[in-house]
Amino acid sequence: MNDCTFCKIVAGRLPSYRVLEDEHTVAFLDIAPASRGHTLVVPREHAPDVWAISEATHAHVAGMVRRVSALVKAALAPDGVNIVHSTGEAAWQEVFHFHTHVVPRWHGDDLRLMWSSQPAQDQELEQTLELVAAAR
Amino acid sequence: MNDCTFCKIVAGRLPSYRVLEDEHTVAFLDIAPASRGHTLVVPREHAPDVWAISEATHAHVAGMVRRVSALVKAALAPDGVNIVHSTGEAAWQEVFHFHTHVVPRWHGDDLRLMWSSQPAQDQELEQTLELVAAAR
Ligand SMILES: [Zn+2]
Ligand SMILES: [Zn+2]
Ligand SMILES: [Zn+2]
Ligand SMILES: [Zn+2]
Repeated sequence: MNDCTFCKIVAGRLPSYRVLEDEHTVAFLDIAPASRGHTLVVPREHAPDVWAISEATHAHVAGMVRRVSALVKAALAPDGVNIVHSTGEAAWQEVFHFHTHVVPRWHGDDLRLMWSSQPAQDQELEQTLELVAAAR
Repeated sequence: MNDCTFCKIVAGRLPSYRVLEDEHTVAFLDIAPASRGHTLVVPREHAPDVWAISEATHAHVAGMVRRVSALVKAALAPDGVNIVHSTGEAAWQEVFHFHTHVVPRWHGDDLRLMWSSQPAQDQELEQTLELVAAAR
């Protein structure tokens, strides 16, 4: 994957602020952070998104995400943390190497992240469940 | 955890639209969905957040999140998916039983999820990395 920015970071061909790494994953600071300590966790092995990543590689990333969450708490004493992943342009994925964002949060920060949602009708939920059950 | 809504859902003492479940986790539709097929994945075992959940339980949730992501793709053919977790009120956590949101996305949906970020100064990133490295 010669053109993949995160493959280059993993290989050390692009610089990064590495926070933690292990055999399967690398965690480094987002250079356009949403908040202080905003970290990306990527697998060393290239996979574009959650629909393509192997179960094992996904599990390695998840383990590192948990470790990074604990580390930023110890280092920066945030009040909370958001963990965010995007698959697909429709979900704002911009780098097509699977990655998960760990975003430390503080009371009163001005991050806007959550959707605005409304209660759904039972019928709507039942219809959705039928579709999902049929695909199960 | 008598007062925990998600413990009640896991135990079947509150109704839910169950999408998938296994020995360790339950996945059910969010009744105030951000998008069609919006699903929550929770561990059967109560843990409040990512700072308190065990490595094993967190891994079980992550595995189910990946399965649910594949399932909603098969069922609903979304263009993308966001996977979102909140720890702490500062990160908009509202139910204090660890959970991860799987949010199917479509081109042109009007969900607003991502932060607006700006490139950071190298010095800022280096200072953050120093704090993190000291806590490592
Ligand atoms: Zn890559
Ligand atoms: Zn991203
Ligand atoms: Zn609970
Ligand atoms: Zn939530």
